Amino acid sequence: MTVDYKIYDLGDLKLQRGATLRDCKLAYKTFGTLNADKSNAMVYPTWYSGQHYDNEWLVGEGMALDPSKYFILIPDMLGNGLSSSPSNTPEPYNKSRFPHVTAYDNVVAQHKLVTEHLGIKHLRLVLGWSMGALQAFHWGAVYPEMMDLLAPFCGSARCSRHNFVFLEGVKAALTADGAFKEGWYDEKPNKGLRAAARVYAGWGFSQTFYRQKLDLERMGYSSLEDFLVSFWEGFFLPKDPNNLLTMLWTGQHGDLSDNEIYNGNFEKALGAIKAKTYVMPGKTDLYFPIEDSEYEVAHMSNAKLIPIPSVWGHFAGGPGTNPDDVKFLDGKLKELLAS
Amino acid sequence: MTVDYKIYDLGDLKLQRGATLRDCKLAYKTFGTLNADKSNAMVYPTWYSGQHYDNEWLVGEGMALDPSKYFILIPDMLGNGLSSSPSNTPEPYNKSRFPHVTAYDNVVAQHKLVTEHLGIKHLRLVLGWSMGALQAFHWGAVYPEMMDLLAPFCGSARCSRHNFVFLEGVKAALTADGAFKEGWYDEKPNKGLRAAARVYAGWGFSQTFYRQKLDLERMGYSSLEDFLVSFWEGFFLPKDPNNLLTMLWTGQHGDLSDNEIYNGNFEKALGAIKAKTYVMPGKTDLYFPIEDSEYEVAHMSNAKLIPIPSVWGHFAGGPGTNPDDVKFLDGKLKELLAS
Repeated sequence: MTVDYKIYDLGDLKLQRGATLRDCKLAYKTFGTLNADKSNAMVYPTWYSGQHYDNEWLVGEGMALDPSKYFILIPDMLGNGLSSSPSNTPEPYNKSRFPHVTAYDNVVAQHKLVTEHLGIKHLRLVLGWSMGALQAFHWGAVYPEMMDLLAPFCGSARCSRHNFVFLEGVKAALTADGAFKEGWYDEKPNKGLRAAARVYAGWGFSQTFYRQKLDLERMGYSSLEDFLVSFWEGFFLPKDPNNLLTMLWTGQHGDLSDNEIYNGNFEKALGAIKAKTYVMPGKTDLYFPIEDSEYEVAHMSNAKLIPIPSVWGHFAGGPGTNPDDVKFLDGKLKELLAS
Repeated sequence: MTVDYKIYDLGDLKLQRGATLRDCKLAYKTFGTLNADKSNAMVYPTWYSGQHYDNEWLVGEGMALDPSKYFILIPDMLGNGLSSSPSNTPEPYNKSRFPHVTAYDNVVAQHKLVTEHLGIKHLRLVLGWSMGALQAFHWGAVYPEMMDLLAPFCGSARCSRHNFVFLEGVKAALTADGAFKEGWYDEKPNKGLRAAARVYAGWGFSQTFYRQKLDLERMGYSSLEDFLVSFWEGFFLPKDPNNLLTMLWTGQHGDLSDNEIYNGNFEKALGAIKAKTYVMPGKTDLYFPIEDSEYEVAHMSNAKLIPIPSVWGHFAGGPGTNPDDVKFLDGKLKELLAS
């Protein structure tokens, strides 16, 4: 098996909630070459359940994220199975004992990788989809001097109460399977994984997407049930349940101000972001509705709200599912990079 | 225990999907008195998991559904635990063997009750919320000569593909619990019921409802978790899982034209409705979006689209949860009855 990514051993990472991840590993992949003055770097964190290769659809010659111009770093989220996760951490912090990790923890770890390991002091752009957007916001508020540009899409700086409830449903479905055994399974709770997938299916795409039968007409599935089994269950089944729950917790507890810098003052945290920012919600995203992005933009000093005009729901922002949305997003990123 | 409702034994009910419910029971409750010429009757079917008392919030002196003027009949849906259901049907059609029941079957059974048992030949109004709206539409298309007025709210004449997927998530969460035993449980799968409740929680109310913390500010719950446990899990736990799945199947397979009268021609079925109709979707309903109601109204000859201006999501239409919505709905029903 060829491994196309690197692992950085951070050493000990003290986490916000008290635990320490010893020999904490951060997986990452890079594209392009760092230029002489190290001014062409970008950071593009992964999303809930995604791994770095799930971000590659936005990288390519002629695109905004052009490896011939930029050095593009995709760090894997903690808990995603490649970076330190319940599934790959040795005892005693393995499996169900894997500690709670916040978006802040993720970004602190990524900052170490960028500055200490790669020696990069400045970033041109930080961007991300969904839980990757949450991390992008954190980059902007925790290290406000460090980047020129910020582009969070189909995500938020704080988990909304409704989004929290949606994730509760996913979690409850996954853990209702007795085979989950409170996280101490030897064999994976496949019924629970399939159930979580079916719950997610209603949230991932919009009502209009389903009404227009884009699962069949555009994605090529042979029936709605085929879409549910092949796309949704097929995506969830290979994942490790404890890993999914670790990232889910990260999402549910996402809050830009939940740290010693901003002490719960969400508006202050948003206001502290200096980077020129394009906040790009999906117009039909069911769990990151546009109103939350509007609120964020209203409290930022240099941000613009750019809704993605798409019926693909949350998937307007990734992972390259709809070519029209990729084109729109890529165009806006080019515009942002040209400014 | 005082029983406040009656049971009508229909005899044998041949169902659309082939089975026969022998000694089929229809529970119902009535309000008011049938007048001499039997011209003041209304039918108001129940909704997914609801029972007749869950409809009573819309009935009252001075309201549109005024028992001093009208004879209001609330028939319990098949599968709801009071009418014939998996939980109360004797072997061999008990529990997991309870047959598939369509909205058409429900309405045929209700029609027998109304005409054969109560001797009513004409209805002033048929109305319903959610799956009750599905039944109201069926009344309108299956017995187009029988009523003056129709008022389906927060529902549809056909289960949309997205709505189907949402219900798949609820079903998958409920049945992921091994204690469900494919429906042959002796003790209820409480983990599955709680999971189904948590899945439902994200769909029942809108993003804005949660953003505005109306669960706390208006409904009086002490925290989001208290709302999830007390309101949602508290609602689902007393229900019988096989009953829930019977009604869920009814909802998922709702289609006004799936019968020998309309042979799958949905537009023809809508066009056949003669009653003056107010179709009232909730403006923020996540699983009965307004677009589906628009389509229905466009194919009906005497229907008006009246969105309920509410942030209470699906609960804009019931069960009396938000006084402002009750006032709006009651006002529109009065307007319809006055016409």
